[in-house]
Amino acid sequence: MMRGWLFSGTNKPLQLIEKEDPKAIPGHVVLEVKAAGLCHSDVAALQDPGWMPLFPNGPVIMGHEFAGVVIEVGEGVEDLKVGDRVGVNPMDRETKITAGYNYDGGYAEKVRVPAKQCVKIPDGVSFVEGAAATDAGITAYRALFTIGQAKEGTKVGIIGVGGLGQFALQMALIKGCKVYATDISPEAKQLAKELGAHKVYDSILDMKEAECDVIVDFAGFGQTTAEALEAIRPQGTVVIVGMGILEANINTYLMITKEIKLLGSNGGTVEDLKGVYDCFATGKMAPNLVTIPFEEIDKGLEKLKNHEVKGRLVAVFE
Amino acid sequence: MMRGWLFSGTNKPLQLIEKEDPKAIPGHVVLEVKAAGLCHSDVAALQDPGWMPLFPNGPVIMGHEFAGVVIEVGEGVEDLKVGDRVGVNPMDRETKITAGYNYDGGYAEKVRVPAKQCVKIPDGVSFVEGAAATDAGITAYRALFTIGQAKEGTKVGIIGVGGLGQFALQMALIKGCKVYATDISPEAKQLAKELGAHKVYDSILDMKEAECDVIVDFAGFGQTTAEALEAIRPQGTVVIVGMGILEANINTYLMITKEIKLLGSNGGTVEDLKGVYDCFATGKMAPNLVTIPFEEIDKGLEKLKNHEVKGRLVAVFE
Repeated sequence: MMRGWLFSGTNKPLQLIEKEDPKAIPGHVVLEVKAAGLCHSDVAALQDPGWMPLFPNGPVIMGHEFAGVVIEVGEGVEDLKVGDRVGVNPMDRETKITAGYNYDGGYAEKVRVPAKQCVKIPDGVSFVEGAAATDAGITAYRALFTIGQAKEGTKVGIIGVGGLGQFALQMALIKGCKVYATDISPEAKQLAKELGAHKVYDSILDMKEAECDVIVDFAGFGQTTAEALEAIRPQGTVVIVGMGILEANINTYLMITKEIKLLGSNGGTVEDLKGVYDCFATGKMAPNLVTIPFEEIDKGLEKLKNHEVKGRLVAVFE
Repeated sequence: MMRGWLFSGTNKPLQLIEKEDPKAIPGHVVLEVKAAGLCHSDVAALQDPGWMPLFPNGPVIMGHEFAGVVIEVGEGVEDLKVGDRVGVNPMDRETKITAGYNYDGGYAEKVRVPAKQCVKIPDGVSFVEGAAATDAGITAYRALFTIGQAKEGTKVGIIGVGGLGQFALQMALIKGCKVYATDISPEAKQLAKELGAHKVYDSILDMKEAECDVIVDFAGFGQTTAEALEAIRPQGTVVIVGMGILEANINTYLMITKEIKLLGSNGGTVEDLKGVYDCFATGKMAPNLVTIPFEEIDKGLEKLKNHEVKGRLVAVFE
């Protein structure tokens, strides 16, 4: 038997339940969960009935951002063995089937996941880091490097130095990009300076002076995207990730005459997760991660809801 | 001495004047103009004072869409010789300096242009075709192939089967693309069918069924761009070229979750012009070109203004 936090529907409290241990099936592995990140989307699902279509199979153990140790290997799995330390890309990008939504996720002592969605965590990288990397990490990595094609020497602009933006800022510096950042919050601007941004601007339009090759909009408030198109250099790339609001009024004249690329980026792949782990393996990543015990996941989500958290909450399992 | 049509400012009639022949200077060639296309932008410049900043050097011979024979070669020009048949990319993309705006253009018996902006016209392609290719042709080519990356087998959607869209449709078929088209005009839809589009849709949203890899918006009416984002397949590309209106309200949720690319495309390069000429050299291009005598360029622009023209007007020089 194992324990896990069950989600039963909107406005119902998460319940710590006991259920049968998951068993490996072909193509899958079972993990002993070591760390599971608490995500704003879980808070949203607990309050907003609009999320229910994402839980088509009824009550389910939540948690889509986790890492652990392989304790059982299913038939046909060749790349993983018992004892491997892995993080999990929670979503199968083809089917959209996602841990913690379609099937039992990582707010549990054990979890069964498809082997192809697991990535080995490098030596020296903790389970807590390994878990946090699977959501904010891959989303930031994909936007910046896979979609935005940032490389050594690329001038990168970051709009919004929150959870995703901090990851992006640190990874961009590790990869040798020149990094410019902006945020409306004075604390976030201060943080961007401390993390080593080459220059921090008071507004997106001010960032025009940096002539960025790539600007990633982690805020996504419509206006932020429109201003990123003003600020980007001719033939530059603006990547949109943040969904602050779901539409933007953009200047197409500018897009055409400057031949701008505006690219949507969504989540990330196993390859993106490997990229994040490579960044962690340099020892230079320092995301703000706050650990809590597994038994307090419900309280942690409550704190997240009440904006009482700085940094990313990660539940750890004793 | 040579004759040419002088533009002196908004709401002043074009004047057929005589002036000294242009002489070759280093890096330049002088052409005897054989054909010059009449463009809507010339009509606009004659009516709308907003265009005057594009004419910074005072009165100038108009015309930015022309082809001719090299009659004099300046110092340092190695790739061209007297007698070569060439079309001209009117704009230097680095400096934006453009024939017919910054300096005397092609509504004249002779014109001096930078040698690097000339492209040889293949045998079997007429001067009339060679001229028409330099504006609508390169703009359509760049949007579809250079920016949109359409290739053999690509499913291409074309919004707006006007001057640019017709070029695009024909070139896409020549390159082996699968071509879908839509337009609000019944005549344009009929034309798209006649030109060989695989399917013609009544609306952009209907085109969703085709699961296009690339959709080019030659209309650019905001709504058309927004609907192209609805219609494109996940991870597909929408290219915007048309400037019907200069802004669009787009669904960023869709752009992010479908990881759509929205790309601006502007004019074209010498490489793009070579691409258009390669299409013409197949003998399969049949753009609707209507010739008028050089002496009637002013009347031709008037007809264009009054929407009395079907197809592209091209002035020819006896």
